[in-house]
Amino acid sequence: MNINYKETLIEAAHAGGEILKKYFGQTLNLIEKSTASDFKTEADIGSESAILTILRNKFPKYNIHSEEEGKFDNGSEYTIIVDPLDGTNNFVLGIPNFSVSIAVVNNKETIAGVIYQPILNQTYFAEKNNGAELNGKKINVSNIIDPNNMTISYNCGYKTDRNRVAFAINNLIISKHKRIVFNWSPSYDYCLLASGKIEAIVTDPGTEVYDYTAGKLIALEAGAKIVYLNKEKSGDNFI
Amino acid sequence: MNINYKETLIEAAHAGGEILKKYFGQTLNLIEKSTASDFKTEADIGSESAILTILRNKFPKYNIHSEEEGKFDNGSEYTIIVDPLDGTNNFVLGIPNFSVSIAVVNNKETIAGVIYQPILNQTYFAEKNNGAELNGKKINVSNIIDPNNMTISYNCGYKTDRNRVAFAINNLIISKHKRIVFNWSPSYDYCLLASGKIEAIVTDPGTEVYDYTAGKLIALEAGAKIVYLNKEKSGDNFI
Repeated sequence: MNINYKETLIEAAHAGGEILKKYFGQTLNLIEKSTASDFKTEADIGSESAILTILRNKFPKYNIHSEEEGKFDNGSEYTIIVDPLDGTNNFVLGIPNFSVSIAVVNNKETIAGVIYQPILNQTYFAEKNNGAELNGKKINVSNIIDPNNMTISYNCGYKTDRNRVAFAINNLIISKHKRIVFNWSPSYDYCLLASGKIEAIVTDPGTEVYDYTAGKLIALEAGAKIVYLNKEKSGDNFI
Repeated sequence: MNINYKETLIEAAHAGGEILKKYFGQTLNLIEKSTASDFKTEADIGSESAILTILRNKFPKYNIHSEEEGKFDNGSEYTIIVDPLDGTNNFVLGIPNFSVSIAVVNNKETIAGVIYQPILNQTYFAEKNNGAELNGKKINVSNIIDPNNMTISYNCGYKTDRNRVAFAINNLIISKHKRIVFNWSPSYDYCLLASGKIEAIVTDPGTEVYDYTAGKLIALEAGAKIVYLNKEKSGDNFI
């Protein structure tokens, strides 16, 4: 099967992103954080609904694995993995670093992925063995190999043990790397890696499949390498 | 002397912010980080120049203390402190979390401050004893007092000892606070504090006077409290 995913995935990601942008604008001037959390929930569900409408119309037989609505198993060998709002915490705080992430997986192999940053109007896309692009232009990872000049991002999930996080961050901070960043927006971190803005991502178990499936493909297609310290415990099930 | 600083400070901050926005848009699609650093320098200098032109025209006798151009001492009791690009690292990485910060200090007392976030078009302003506002609307700090529900941001400077940073972050991460964030954008962190989006900022010595003078006034006027663990070593010279 040789399907062109690009147009549909980008269309779906943009549809979700437009909804995020609308709600984000409304949260910005709020004082009460509890209300911001309500907007976050509405944004999340609204974005997901817009995305799934487009994807289900185009790929009605595919399984869907979406962060809010959950898993829909149609018995297909194809699964679409959707994160309608990655960087939720940034969204709630009023920090404009969040995105939409959509990946298509064939059995265990990720074959296409898109990440859309709605505030910056940046669309990252990759198809297996076909390179990665940002707004239609090919991108590549950084060519910096001196550790002293590297910027490294740390990722973990809400479930990751706090002591483990503290230990990992401690080791990173006292390392000689140029800069350690914590963007709490895993999908966009993979875009930063793929476009050569940062040199590495260190991830602890606890991130969700929605957080990294599209991003991993985009980074790999831009030339990134993955090193597992413990593949079984990493939670990463996809090639 | 009863001067209305609001109009001029906001005009200057917007002028700087427009220049940042223009260069940021140009850096976004760059692959080479070294080129992004060039854009950062041009953005920094361009923003500062636009800001200082407006301030010097309106307040020709004031001292100027600006991050790029340095200190201009006119022997005045008034000093204007300018950070034409706070959140430099975010700017270079392509993360849209950066701002312009301008404060007016009378001897040791900060009397007015503005912070402009150009990507979000947010203008935070405060005058001593007159409250803080966001885009013209009064803002207040969060009323959350349960530590378990608090989001805390950590700040330090490039000069801060890495071992100290590791120790501080370690202690924060293993605390029971809801969330620890590292935005590397001190000015905007004060805005998040002032508008109730986060509950506290922990700052180690090493941040610069440009980073916090306007922000501190905005947060104080929104109801924040300051606790010094060691005032002498804090580097904070202003009331």
